[in-house]
Amino acid sequence: MLIIAEELERFDKLKKVQLATSLPGVKPACLVGTKDSSGLENLSLFSSITHFGSSPLILGMVTRPDTVARHTLDNILETKVWTLSHITPEFLSQAHQCSAKYPKEVSEFVATGLTPDYPEPEFHAPAVLEARVKMGLSLKDIIDIPINGTKLILGQVEWIDLMEGALETDGSLDWESLGSLGSTALDTYFTVTEHARLAYARP
Amino acid sequence: MLIIAEELERFDKLKKVQLATSLPGVKPACLVGTKDSSGLENLSLFSSITHFGSSPLILGMVTRPDTVARHTLDNILETKVWTLSHITPEFLSQAHQCSAKYPKEVSEFVATGLTPDYPEPEFHAPAVLEARVKMGLSLKDIIDIPINGTKLILGQVEWIDLMEGALETDGSLDWESLGSLGSTALDTYFTVTEHARLAYARP
Repeated sequence: MLIIAEELERFDKLKKVQLATSLPGVKPACLVGTKDSSGLENLSLFSSITHFGSSPLILGMVTRPDTVARHTLDNILETKVWTLSHITPEFLSQAHQCSAKYPKEVSEFVATGLTPDYPEPEFHAPAVLEARVKMGLSLKDIIDIPINGTKLILGQVEWIDLMEGALETDGSLDWESLGSLGSTALDTYFTVTEHARLAYARP
Repeated sequence: MLIIAEELERFDKLKKVQLATSLPGVKPACLVGTKDSSGLENLSLFSSITHFGSSPLILGMVTRPDTVARHTLDNILETKVWTLSHITPEFLSQAHQCSAKYPKEVSEFVATGLTPDYPEPEFHAPAVLEARVKMGLSLKDIIDIPINGTKLILGQVEWIDLMEGALETDGSLDWESLGSLGSTALDTYFTVTEHARLAYARP
């Protein structure tokens, strides 16, 4: 079935959002951890996380100024650091609850019962203790997207805290034992199963 | 196990790339279809595809100037349009082969046996007939990422061609029947299984 842009625009707002956030396919399901300069910790759910570079290791994530993620953006602007923690089935309901619009003075750690973790003691932002893949990032750039007012936040990975044994000798991660979930749209989570690992392709 | 940035920098190049492209977690596995003004069709493998907006529906993808994706970027700059086709297990080996560095004059459709498809006859760029989720995009912006020379290509979805019955009434997609694969790193592909669909979270 073919749907053209004019028809898409006639979908009601929620249906449009659901389809738009589904269309790219399965994306990472991560919690972003920050802490403001007064010490208040914050967690926010992000799926728009993408690799931008390997050396140094740069990851990007997308935010709108007018979402719950605004507390995250404010804290990143203030402290220049954040963490990413991959969500697993064991704490999915708590992680999903972090997408609720809590007031700024409520820490999602307290509200959901997730545990702040500081694997690198000097690093200002908290990760999630329950996660098996965690990393700390430092702000390298925030890029405004003029066409719709979103922002791309770019950070360099400063440390990675991985479950013992999950890093393969070639640098890949053992996803089956890590159990990181994927997500689409605003509400759907997926387990992933390795289907194939293919050799470097040559013409 | 904790790995800090200094240790990461000492990993050999391939290991660094493998880890960097694994870290975000599972991402979409898509073929990008383009055609230059002389009519030569091109396919390229992308995983860095993210949602940037719902109304209009904007998707972004990341490219480096110095990869096989350069032909894709050249064609997009020339014709202002491209397609995305989600990869399924049935044509994975052909899709993965599109990541090989073919010379510009070789069409990956011809090299791999995938079939060009033009669901919207007026649209210049080809999709992949074998795919169950296809869409056409028009160029809205290309944003240079100063810190490492990558580029973010932003497009508006002009049409979507979906397998019959895959669009739910709320705008979500039935991933189990669509069979779209996820990927991490440069070589690993995953099937996805719905684990949970959670209600809109409120404080």
